[in-house]
Amino acid sequence: MRNLLLTLAFDGTAYHGWQVQANAVTVQQTVQDAAERICGRREPLTGCSRTDAGVHANEYCCTLRTESSVDCATLVQALNALLPRDIAVSACREVPPDFHPRYDCTAKEYVYRIWNAPQKHPFLYKYAYHFKYPLDAGLLHAEAQAYCGTHDFSAFCAAGGSVEDHVRTVSAAAVEREGDLVQFRVSADGFLYNMVRIMTGTLLEIAGGKLPPGCIPAILASGERSAAGFTAPAHGLFLNHVSYAPDGCGEGDYGRE
Amino acid sequence: MRNLLLTLAFDGTAYHGWQVQANAVTVQQTVQDAAERICGRREPLTGCSRTDAGVHANEYCCTLRTESSVDCATLVQALNALLPRDIAVSACREVPPDFHPRYDCTAKEYVYRIWNAPQKHPFLYKYAYHFKYPLDAGLLHAEAQAYCGTHDFSAFCAAGGSVEDHVRTVSAAAVEREGDLVQFRVSADGFLYNMVRIMTGTLLEIAGGKLPPGCIPAILASGERSAAGFTAPAHGLFLNHVSYAPDGCGEGDYGRE
Repeated sequence: MRNLLLTLAFDGTAYHGWQVQANAVTVQQTVQDAAERICGRREPLTGCSRTDAGVHANEYCCTLRTESSVDCATLVQALNALLPRDIAVSACREVPPDFHPRYDCTAKEYVYRIWNAPQKHPFLYKYAYHFKYPLDAGLLHAEAQAYCGTHDFSAFCAAGGSVEDHVRTVSAAAVEREGDLVQFRVSADGFLYNMVRIMTGTLLEIAGGKLPPGCIPAILASGERSAAGFTAPAHGLFLNHVSYAPDGCGEGDYGRE
Repeated sequence: MRNLLLTLAFDGTAYHGWQVQANAVTVQQTVQDAAERICGRREPLTGCSRTDAGVHANEYCCTLRTESSVDCATLVQALNALLPRDIAVSACREVPPDFHPRYDCTAKEYVYRIWNAPQKHPFLYKYAYHFKYPLDAGLLHAEAQAYCGTHDFSAFCAAGGSVEDHVRTVSAAAVEREGDLVQFRVSADGFLYNMVRIMTGTLLEIAGGKLPPGCIPAILASGERSAAGFTAPAHGLFLNHVSYAPDGCGEGDYGRE
């Protein structure tokens, strides 16, 4: 039995997130169907995170445990040939049998994209949230620094998550403008259910004057979801990078070619 | 009767080109339907070019002749509210009664986008042609210079065009790489049916060794469509800029805000 680490990218528009569900098409099920056709049997596929319906990934890692002897380059080619156009496989490599794409992940980076112009963008409507009123990226960048560090993020966690420990460490948070596109980039050792989308909604409510500047430490301290901002829509969110430190020997880019 | 010049951008994926057709959804018809709801009556809408089914526009100009007194800013807002997400209006201004968006156009720029990597791109599949084999952008740039100047472009015109004069002046042609994205950018005083797509296909056949380097002058001289390369698919093509020289007073950016 080999354990193969696959790196994917996908347009999440058409999918109900990663994880297999009854009566809904998911990325996991779609990749598993393609792998089954190649490997000749249905093999377990484990993802690095559940992602919400409609969320995209520039980089997503999962492992396929397979009895098949197919080599990695052939598997990448064959998966890409069988998968629909909105899921692409960029890499495959064999990892130790006990490697787990979620538990061995040391950090993830998400990017939330905001199209910040009065008029909609006809090419980005599925890949960025349209926010019409001018954003001060410098102000939001300063506000976002309050997310950094180790905090209980209960206020930034939607109801329905199954995780009990809400303490996470955010290692970096940044808001940058490039033309009319404003991007919120955040890295952490892990994220709670809807956490990045609520972090984004909170920044947008500060920008719009609904929440006061400097409010994030108090929201964190409250632990109350109702104290934070709205949940920004899924279609602006991209899982951007997944980091692994294989064999405990320092920060690695195991998921990347 | 006012003559209003509208600047649009659209994702052409869902449309059978610009021009109204029976039994097919077109951009012209979609904009005309929205304008009719705002102006209270169906008004003539004239475009700067027919575009093929599936071709996109970063900038497209058209005129609306209307009896309505709606001001330009309100019209832009109202059109954007009524139009589907894949068509956006960026500007509107009043132009002289005899202004014609096609005949008064002094130049157009098209960009053909090629995703040049072994694996597909899950976000660009509708906005770039996937060409797997490595392209030498420097070589193609040098080859593309043969398109510049005034030539009979009959060899680069698909059957079915209604225009009899096939002489056009290409003012600039460039091939540039940015990461895995290769872009062919071409400006001319006008373009024939499928001209940019055949120019692109010819460059790709030179890259692939199916046509010899230096062949473009002979293809132009032959006037034979069969001498040129294949018609590259519509989804890689963008109308990028439309230039007007209003009132004959020099090069202007009439279509741009």
